[in-house]
Amino acid sequence: MPYLSYVRDGEPHIGAITADGIDEFEGISALTPDHDLDHLTRALHGSRIDRASTSPLPASPRAQKILCVGLNYDEHILETGREKPTYPVFFAKFASNLIADGDPILLPRESDQVDFEGELAVIVGRRGRRISEQDALEHVLGYSVANDVTMRDFQYKTHQWIQGKAWDRSTPLGDVIVPPAEIDLNRAGIRTYFNDQLVQQSDLSHLIFSIPRLIAEISTFTELNAGDVILTGTPGGVGFRRDPQLFIRDGDELRVEIDGIGSIANRAQLEP
Amino acid sequence: MPYLSYVRDGEPHIGAITADGIDEFEGISALTPDHDLDHLTRALHGSRIDRASTSPLPASPRAQKILCVGLNYDEHILETGREKPTYPVFFAKFASNLIADGDPILLPRESDQVDFEGELAVIVGRRGRRISEQDALEHVLGYSVANDVTMRDFQYKTHQWIQGKAWDRSTPLGDVIVPPAEIDLNRAGIRTYFNDQLVQQSDLSHLIFSIPRLIAEISTFTELNAGDVILTGTPGGVGFRRDPQLFIRDGDELRVEIDGIGSIANRAQLEP
Repeated sequence: MPYLSYVRDGEPHIGAITADGIDEFEGISALTPDHDLDHLTRALHGSRIDRASTSPLPASPRAQKILCVGLNYDEHILETGREKPTYPVFFAKFASNLIADGDPILLPRESDQVDFEGELAVIVGRRGRRISEQDALEHVLGYSVANDVTMRDFQYKTHQWIQGKAWDRSTPLGDVIVPPAEIDLNRAGIRTYFNDQLVQQSDLSHLIFSIPRLIAEISTFTELNAGDVILTGTPGGVGFRRDPQLFIRDGDELRVEIDGIGSIANRAQLEP
Repeated sequence: MPYLSYVRDGEPHIGAITADGIDEFEGISALTPDHDLDHLTRALHGSRIDRASTSPLPASPRAQKILCVGLNYDEHILETGREKPTYPVFFAKFASNLIADGDPILLPRESDQVDFEGELAVIVGRRGRRISEQDALEHVLGYSVANDVTMRDFQYKTHQWIQGKAWDRSTPLGDVIVPPAEIDLNRAGIRTYFNDQLVQQSDLSHLIFSIPRLIAEISTFTELNAGDVILTGTPGGVGFRRDPQLFIRDGDELRVEIDGIGSIANRAQLEP
């Protein structure tokens, strides 16, 4: 069963999606290192919540570590003119950057080049350090959909990227978390739509660094815990590399969908 | 009065250093966004703790955001062969990377190039977004001493640095936090000693990007909160740029000191 992160009666919750609603986990408002896969299973409440009484939250609204991958699809590497990496390109975001499905993407007045990057998100469910590729999926709570929105003019201010990647309330992260056992990612398509125009299209078989490899590499240097998030990189077609370039303006809608997981849609809104 | 982050009876605490001990803040185990400067003042306990009954903790052991500056002293930029930046080079670390004064720097078996970077740390004390340079120091709880230990072979695996910077239990951060009103940083010397050999020496007047400028730039893209940490960059003399190169081996001791704040000393220990 997929998990769901949501607000009910003004409070954050997490539950499991069932045929007739949501099984709410008791006493857990959001994923944290204290709430691993085993703990979640024990906390299943049993009482059913009507999904209509909820609104979406990011899959892990209090994520302590958000690791993102920069170049993980051949077509995107080709369009950037960079060489194919032999080790993943990592950078970080912060939990305050995240917004939920349906929330406005805040366009800061400081940037003229806000761009989209549709991505698969991995939500960590179990603590681990130096996790082997063989064991990696046992540490995954599930997969969600994300849009690694990027301010290109800030990204390229220096050779490090975080000031273009970590703007508050700019990064949509889905509320549905699909466990690895319930999806064959190798055949799943990923698509980004810009006001209904298809702008990115690939499938997850094209990931250069697999999800187990990413988990193994990250956990070599830092412990992964329940609630941590990995954004796995974007396919080709980003706005910065188009001719003419395509950037997000006030009122534009961005939608990212991944087969077997679902979709997220977010409209851009100029920050007051 | 300077603040102190420490362990007493197995629990984390924070207090104010007085002439005859520590005034412990009541109900605050570590700096978090809920514990800003005003809240701290109200939580002053009044009962005195004997400092001998405590052991050091990093100034902000649960920091949600740790922003580091890559190139902020002329001599270090010269030795790296890079151009002088017009915007600060930022990257992130995680709270799990931090260790206290006196704790062992864990040398991972995966790296042969563990290097030192003595730095001034800024501990944020008050929430803010788009903080002006004029207001910036009102958001600073105080200053501490840090060693931005870096695994060079991992740092240069790609053009992004985090995999060389974010190793768990490798980054010493001091326990003493000196408020801005109590120190004239512009005249403070900073020195790093490698087994008592002076390997880095500068003073904080050489910072290319001032502390107010760093706070203004970071808070342009993401909110700063009490407990967040800014590592402000290292002077020249790092081991990677020496001839011959100098890396940290099992048993080596690193000491960083800043006039008016104090010093931290950490011995390296090969990870089992």
